[in-house]
Amino acid sequence: MNDISDFHTHHGAFGALGSFTLGRFGMPGGFNHHDGSRPGDDEVFLGMARGRSGLRVLPFFRYGNSDTSRFAQGNLLGDPIPVHRVAPETIRRRLGLGSDQWRWEDGSFKICTPFGKVPDPRQGWEALRDHVAPGILAILEFDNRGSDEEATGIFALAGTAPGAGPLHTDGLVGVARNGRTGWAAPASTGARPIAGFSPDLCLSPEGRPRSPHWLGACSGLAWVVPPRTLLRVPLALAWFHEGLATHGLESRYAYQEAFGNLAEVLTNLLDRAPELERRADELDAALEASGLEPERRWILSHAVRGYFGNSQLLRTSSQEPIWAVHEGEYAMINTLDLAVDQVFFEQELFPWVTREVLDLFAHRHSFVDHLRVPGDTHVHEGGVSFCHDMGVRNQFSVPGTSCYEVADLHGCFSHMTQEQAINWPLLACTHVLASGDRAWALERCGILESCLDGLERREHPDPARRAGVPGTESTRCGSGSEITTYDSLDPALAQARGNLYLVVKLWAAYRGLELVLRSLGRVESAERAGIARGRVEEAILAWPEFDGFLPAHADGRSRSAILPAVEGLVFPMHWKDPLLEGDDLPGFVLRLGSHLERVLDGGHCRFPDGGWRLSSTSGNSWLSKIALAQAVAEGVFGLPRDGKADGVHVGWLAPGSADWGFTDQIVDGKGIGSKYYPRGVSAILWPGARQSLT
Amino acid sequence: MNDISDFHTHHGAFGALGSFTLGRFGMPGGFNHHDGSRPGDDEVFLGMARGRSGLRVLPFFRYGNSDTSRFAQGNLLGDPIPVHRVAPETIRRRLGLGSDQWRWEDGSFKICTPFGKVPDPRQGWEALRDHVAPGILAILEFDNRGSDEEATGIFALAGTAPGAGPLHTDGLVGVARNGRTGWAAPASTGARPIAGFSPDLCLSPEGRPRSPHWLGACSGLAWVVPPRTLLRVPLALAWFHEGLATHGLESRYAYQEAFGNLAEVLTNLLDRAPELERRADELDAALEASGLEPERRWILSHAVRGYFGNSQLLRTSSQEPIWAVHEGEYAMINTLDLAVDQVFFEQELFPWVTREVLDLFAHRHSFVDHLRVPGDTHVHEGGVSFCHDMGVRNQFSVPGTSCYEVADLHGCFSHMTQEQAINWPLLACTHVLASGDRAWALERCGILESCLDGLERREHPDPARRAGVPGTESTRCGSGSEITTYDSLDPALAQARGNLYLVVKLWAAYRGLELVLRSLGRVESAERAGIARGRVEEAILAWPEFDGFLPAHADGRSRSAILPAVEGLVFPMHWKDPLLEGDDLPGFVLRLGSHLERVLDGGHCRFPDGGWRLSSTSGNSWLSKIALAQAVAEGVFGLPRDGKADGVHVGWLAPGSADWGFTDQIVDGKGIGSKYYPRGVSAILWPGARQSLT
Repeated sequence: MNDISDFHTHHGAFGALGSFTLGRFGMPGGFNHHDGSRPGDDEVFLGMARGRSGLRVLPFFRYGNSDTSRFAQGNLLGDPIPVHRVAPETIRRRLGLGSDQWRWEDGSFKICTPFGKVPDPRQGWEALRDHVAPGILAILEFDNRGSDEEATGIFALAGTAPGAGPLHTDGLVGVARNGRTGWAAPASTGARPIAGFSPDLCLSPEGRPRSPHWLGACSGLAWVVPPRTLLRVPLALAWFHEGLATHGLESRYAYQEAFGNLAEVLTNLLDRAPELERRADELDAALEASGLEPERRWILSHAVRGYFGNSQLLRTSSQEPIWAVHEGEYAMINTLDLAVDQVFFEQELFPWVTREVLDLFAHRHSFVDHLRVPGDTHVHEGGVSFCHDMGVRNQFSVPGTSCYEVADLHGCFSHMTQEQAINWPLLACTHVLASGDRAWALERCGILESCLDGLERREHPDPARRAGVPGTESTRCGSGSEITTYDSLDPALAQARGNLYLVVKLWAAYRGLELVLRSLGRVESAERAGIARGRVEEAILAWPEFDGFLPAHADGRSRSAILPAVEGLVFPMHWKDPLLEGDDLPGFVLRLGSHLERVLDGGHCRFPDGGWRLSSTSGNSWLSKIALAQAVAEGVFGLPRDGKADGVHVGWLAPGSADWGFTDQIVDGKGIGSKYYPRGVSAILWPGARQSLT
Repeated sequence: MNDISDFHTHHGAFGALGSFTLGRFGMPGGFNHHDGSRPGDDEVFLGMARGRSGLRVLPFFRYGNSDTSRFAQGNLLGDPIPVHRVAPETIRRRLGLGSDQWRWEDGSFKICTPFGKVPDPRQGWEALRDHVAPGILAILEFDNRGSDEEATGIFALAGTAPGAGPLHTDGLVGVARNGRTGWAAPASTGARPIAGFSPDLCLSPEGRPRSPHWLGACSGLAWVVPPRTLLRVPLALAWFHEGLATHGLESRYAYQEAFGNLAEVLTNLLDRAPELERRADELDAALEASGLEPERRWILSHAVRGYFGNSQLLRTSSQEPIWAVHEGEYAMINTLDLAVDQVFFEQELFPWVTREVLDLFAHRHSFVDHLRVPGDTHVHEGGVSFCHDMGVRNQFSVPGTSCYEVADLHGCFSHMTQEQAINWPLLACTHVLASGDRAWALERCGILESCLDGLERREHPDPARRAGVPGTESTRCGSGSEITTYDSLDPALAQARGNLYLVVKLWAAYRGLELVLRSLGRVESAERAGIARGRVEEAILAWPEFDGFLPAHADGRSRSAILPAVEGLVFPMHWKDPLLEGDDLPGFVLRLGSHLERVLDGGHCRFPDGGWRLSSTSGNSWLSKIALAQAVAEGVFGLPRDGKADGVHVGWLAPGSADWGFTDQIVDGKGIGSKYYPRGVSAILWPGARQSLT
């Protein structure tokens, strides 16, 4: 795999909903926090000046001119220092699982974002302090070993407005912007604040730091680098939100109780600098040793950053934890059809976050609906289901509702009731089977059994007419009809009823309930779940065939070939379900395997360049969903890795989505939606990937 | 004066640094708070739908389309209701001192921003609660009296991102956006929340409210208006900032201790709705009765809103009050050369704010410098002076510094030390002479006398060579030279040394010190001040003449005719100094009067259209400074009001600065700087204007 340098990626922290986004040449980035929906608006100026040769900086900015035009005309502030961009082709970037590093002629910049296991706050918040610090560590190296002249290194950000000031506290020197974002280095490194309208006015033409001019919106730190010296500087970058973090359901960031302000966070990060760098290096090494191919190592490293940058650990006034993952640019809170794909990553490190999401859905964003059967005007008893999400952009929706779902529609924004009725028990069973959290499961027997009831009724109100296929519409839809998570893909996947993707997920939900309820001693319910999944197996075995594959709908008209037909098999695969572990796979699984091989080999689900295609009737793809299909292809059916496809998928992200960090929705090789997204961590299901999480 | 409708103006509240800015057609506005530098980003949709004829709204927005493109293509959410803009020529707007009202065929919208005397927080914070509520009251009228059909009225804002939710509390129904901005009406009005991607998706094509779709960034309230009915709705609009308000010097908004959250503010405003509307009406009536001409009534009403929208009452953790006025788009805190022009307004209503600004400058942003005399390499003893400002955008500068001033410059951004050495005692003396705050003055004898010392030394270090003219440079300038507040106007006014504008202000400072020190029993100092002002009088009497006027500099080369030559006379005029009250004006005053008549009658200080021009060698004008010159022309010299000029000045604001609210810096009839500015309240010095502040 060739070096890829020119792309944005999140650099965030656990539960702090913030990022120092960096990497795209010629674009702003830098800090964004409390609103995870896009990269920040900071122009980043990072580099070195030596003598009168000007300031050479990495190309992480759009402009270099001072904006003093509002005050008067002309060159008011004396001669600026010439600013030169380091040529992109001379920059080497290495994205690892724990660090992201740039090297160029004058030095290096390494952002460390290590992650790992996080203790359960219900066992005591105190143990989480270091885990929830809202900031990251970087290591700056200014290399002046080849020169007999003194040089000046700078790290400065130009925002859209002034408001920065110096920070001098406990042995560190930094810059803070309205108490919300800031960065600092140990005073022992010789750091001094700089500020001005632009970086070319922060240094004299001779390359020396000027006195700070805080009226300007550019501010940062500068270091004198003696001749024949390499200066290595730990640099903490942090953010801080005061006051309530969420409304509707009121909460604050967990970090707000652990830290009093930005300065305390910066101090914490610098105190832990050696540990943070070591852990980042260890993650890099573990990924290298995992056996994953370079393309997959790169995608996974990118995706993990998207997850953390969208994560939010909150605390209510009664000390209850709330875990929220924002849906990237859409900023929806804990979208359930994302949660069910992210669980595989969460279970490796902090399974309690899944538990919290499950409970908050159950307590606050669940409901019992009624059902309609197409062609029948009666309203039938329904069952428990769950909302699509919990709200948007830090505003929780009214209990029992989502921000997304609207009545009377047949496509995007309609209700996703059937799918979420499947997703919640799938998420719950995966949590229980992966984490072994039996105590939790025992207390949720009631709702698990209600889910089973509801899923059966959603096949058909009349038990005699249940056929292992979702066949009803929630009355919540009004005059509309239910959709699936693939709502914006194409009609082949958008409609819920009779959808092969949902049928296989329904099987997984029944199977999960069967396993969990049996383990809890609920024999009768477990047997009922077993019978129900048998119905689904029959349905799959009886599914019509077209051109050698199973079309998306069993209506006899569908001609769509879809990869997500096999998506539901990731769950039993992850549970190590004995049904999939033996030498002989069940017949319905084999049929799905044949389908998968056919749509791949037949080219139905491939783009001309070899990238995987979710549906033969749509040009849309979601990378996180492709990863699930790949995991099943390799993990369940033993197909070889499609290296060519992985290479194409890398290109969809960079250059295809280089402006945005990890991006999920791709059309024609470019990210067009689901930008800055958390769901890419489904890649943890690739064979071997979990070994990197040591 | 013709009706003027199409312009933005602040609608703010005392000390709450916020505004619901409205009035410019085809532009966003709405809420901005905690950053007073520009109008908000809200598109405002206000109007009524009747039957299938669509929604008719005032034209306070740029676009009407739903942005669902990130989710999928096409018209996903059902048919939108057609949106029609009310034709601008059918809208009547009336801007009064207390209310701003629009009337159109379907109703009216009246924003009430009454203001008045505010008690001193050092007498107890409790009495300020109602004064510091961060919000305003509006009165909506939906007029359906002419129809037999039911109608729906709406008030909705479309921001740049979602995050709104419904507010149901204590008899009110509202919408809040992330707890930071919100609006509400009594539940008894039948208000119900609406939300969607755009206003055309908040109502059905039949004009009925749809269920809210909170994923959209448009949200608001809707009311059903029965046939043959006029519905009158009090609507509270509020904002709230949590956490620290300022850094560098840490403080919170005074309103944060008076109110727990946005809902409490909304409740307070609706509880006081009748009183707020009555007080707004009273201010309108008092202005009408003041005898001010329509043009001046309009400018004053506009200017007052700029002041309040930039005002900030803060409270430290030790309960000390801090008063800050932000410098409009530049957002500098308490720029001293603005404070000295705003004092005349403040003294009428809340003289204690001037006191707080004076003390904070003295305690935190003063210094003692050294002086240089041009052509002399020695460094001489200096004196006390004050910084240009206290910081920028809620970030206080390091004690002893401003955000603005930089060394080694000869123009904009250089130090303003001489002028601020004059401004602080002028501000102090005006406060003492207007408010009679003798107790405060007695405690400041020391610094007042130090100011006198310093001003004398700034003429020349050698007492024998003092000639009533500033003649030194502060060593703070380094290799540069001092400027004045007119830094960006032209060289005639920018240079401090030998500047006629500063000479007359220096006279006023000496005269103020003479009066105040004498009243405090400091006879010797008072006499010294009297002798010093005598020197200045001599200097003015000896000033060279060119073409019948006094050029800006006494260097024999200057050919600039400037109106600010007389600016310093506003102070003794405001103090009712006996020197100006008698029948015979002193000789130097008469000479300044001749200068003023000459530069006006000779056209030096007029633009071709009749607007006043501050300097014959610059096309820049500042409206607030013109008001000072007008006040002197009419109040000191008895010149008749220049009605034609007032008409031209109105045009500089609207249409000339219609995008920005009150704007000070005008070139070619358009606002080019100092936008969204507080200083226009100097217009309170117009004869008769004070009578409106009942």
